[in-house]
Amino acid sequence: MIAGVGATDFGEHPDRTGRDLFAEARSLALERSAVPPDEVAALYYGNFMGETAEGQSHQAPLMAEGLGSSGLEATRIENACASGGYAVAEGVRAIRSGAADVVLVGGMERMTTLGTEGTTASLARAADELYEISAGMTFPGAYGLLADAYLDRHDGTREDLAHVAVKNHANATTNPKAQYRREITVEDALEAPTVASPLGLYDACPITDGAGAAVLVSPEYADTAGLEPKAVVTGSGRGTDALPLQGRDDLTRTPAAEAAAETAYEQAGIGPGDVDFAEVHDCFTIAEVLALEALGLYEHGEAIDAARDGETTRDGSIPVNLSGGLKAKGHPVGATGVSQLVEATKLLAGTHPNADAVPEASTAVTHNAGGTVATAAVHVLEAVDVEEVGA
Amino acid sequence: MIAGVGATDFGEHPDRTGRDLFAEARSLALERSAVPPDEVAALYYGNFMGETAEGQSHQAPLMAEGLGSSGLEATRIENACASGGYAVAEGVRAIRSGAADVVLVGGMERMTTLGTEGTTASLARAADELYEISAGMTFPGAYGLLADAYLDRHDGTREDLAHVAVKNHANATTNPKAQYRREITVEDALEAPTVASPLGLYDACPITDGAGAAVLVSPEYADTAGLEPKAVVTGSGRGTDALPLQGRDDLTRTPAAEAAAETAYEQAGIGPGDVDFAEVHDCFTIAEVLALEALGLYEHGEAIDAARDGETTRDGSIPVNLSGGLKAKGHPVGATGVSQLVEATKLLAGTHPNADAVPEASTAVTHNAGGTVATAAVHVLEAVDVEEVGA
Repeated sequence: MIAGVGATDFGEHPDRTGRDLFAEARSLALERSAVPPDEVAALYYGNFMGETAEGQSHQAPLMAEGLGSSGLEATRIENACASGGYAVAEGVRAIRSGAADVVLVGGMERMTTLGTEGTTASLARAADELYEISAGMTFPGAYGLLADAYLDRHDGTREDLAHVAVKNHANATTNPKAQYRREITVEDALEAPTVASPLGLYDACPITDGAGAAVLVSPEYADTAGLEPKAVVTGSGRGTDALPLQGRDDLTRTPAAEAAAETAYEQAGIGPGDVDFAEVHDCFTIAEVLALEALGLYEHGEAIDAARDGETTRDGSIPVNLSGGLKAKGHPVGATGVSQLVEATKLLAGTHPNADAVPEASTAVTHNAGGTVATAAVHVLEAVDVEEVGA
Repeated sequence: MIAGVGATDFGEHPDRTGRDLFAEARSLALERSAVPPDEVAALYYGNFMGETAEGQSHQAPLMAEGLGSSGLEATRIENACASGGYAVAEGVRAIRSGAADVVLVGGMERMTTLGTEGTTASLARAADELYEISAGMTFPGAYGLLADAYLDRHDGTREDLAHVAVKNHANATTNPKAQYRREITVEDALEAPTVASPLGLYDACPITDGAGAAVLVSPEYADTAGLEPKAVVTGSGRGTDALPLQGRDDLTRTPAAEAAAETAYEQAGIGPGDVDFAEVHDCFTIAEVLALEALGLYEHGEAIDAARDGETTRDGSIPVNLSGGLKAKGHPVGATGVSQLVEATKLLAGTHPNADAVPEASTAVTHNAGGTVATAAVHVLEAVDVEEVGA
């Protein structure tokens, strides 16, 4: 069960260290959960580029300071942009297995101080050094290839993709945590400079500093301690694919995310049709399209139409990235997978500024991807009936 | 249960990539386990300095290539020098929780191509950037402080510490995997250049390339598949301490390792008195002394005498680091915690070249530490009676 969540504002924090950012997110999560810090038995912490951004590896014990006892387990997980989602998944397993009653999951990234070039170089390390990085491939280029393949196969256009960015910017305008709280138009997107054809500047997420955290507890602990859980994770799936694109059979699908979704749905005992809203990994606009298809929310080749037709807007049949997504909320890499949990929890609990878009929602799905979806983590969250759980 | 283990030679491998090193270890472990690669459900992989050594983050999917299906979970864990031990612990949890029947745990580090200065700088990132690294602290200095504090408190000498190095070098002479297969004398150690007072060159482990892997399976899987498990992990404990030394109450003790040992012993239902031999984290000679006390094999202040008095030699009452330890076998950071499991398994199974030192051994303990023991992982391994398990 999710006892409490917290996050920093996403954006530029040039004057704050990583430990400072994570301390804020973790304090908020602990306070809201009403769990004393010394009851935390394990920390699973996602961080991607601490080595290059802050000269700091071994961040888990740093971020765990003041928690638990000497027997606390503090683990850093690095799975590129899926670091946070994998941290959540390990935390869920620790609770489910009975190994711990209280687990803190979290993530943090400081990126903006590296600048665009430094960040792009650091991000590239999530691709294959031997076959991709050394050939000059960076992520805009890699996702450009995915976009090319998809648009070609399914007769999509750059304009179709632009609608994803327009939608996510619109959602972010009312999320005070978001980095870009301003609307853009389809024309803005189409007129923006090309980053890696067919992707333009507004097809890409920004460079962001930020942190997120969530306190997970066992139902027994929640009951005994008299907590008020905000949501419950009923499904947790992970998947893997070949790291380099050259190892893939089909660039228009993401089997790692498909497998992760299948596991998560199976555990939750639901299907894509039961999902009320989704927070997905839109590091580029094409990534949101691929995500919705991997999650089974749309058939292959059909998600490209969803944003254009308004189906995934806040008033659509299945709102996607009500937070603003990576695109407009921001993408502090190691924090993103946890931030999705934070946002989805607040939306389900009705405490999110955009919760009015999904007043009846009971089921959400989060989708977090590493690299070109070489790793993926999918979680199903359900609204919790406190009385029922407490019984 | 440990179905099979494998490791590369430890030493200098300038012409081999990290993926090449890990592939060797993983292939050996899979072959010896007789488990088909596509049955692996999860990989937990320890790596510390891939970013700086090879420009490669996101190594988990790279190392998982060819394993399992799209639903495979591939997770990189970075907890400095305890990355491998924490990877083992997560793997054990995945099996115990019933989430997976077959898990590959492994670790790899390539260090020698960075040179001494580059490696020292990369290793320093495991200390606290704000309070230690920026003040010029590196690990020889940090362990020098620990040695100073311990020798002062317990009236020990540099010569006492030298016996740890002499013993571990002696053990390594008969381990073909070891980096330094030559004996040294107490005089060699005392006459060697000072690295960080009171520690000299022979108090420190070398810079090493290498990889290790182990296949963990559930008892049910082992039974159904007709495997011949080589040993069983009966205890798995972890602990955490403040990252910087300034956050510690007492520099002569390592509470993270004490807590990890307590958990591991409790799970195994044994005590320190039941341990037949140990593989411990002797990145510096003083670290072995601290480890033996944290494991409860000696009272505080008494382990300093153990090596000097020959109690921890191959013919002593409790052989320690029969592999040669980090000191002489080598210390490819991310691989070390897994390598300890590999060595202990072979010693228990009687297939290790030094197994004749412990012919009746049924219980071993491994101790892996990160930084100045800000993180620690302790595992209890027991010899397995195949007939009994198969029943």
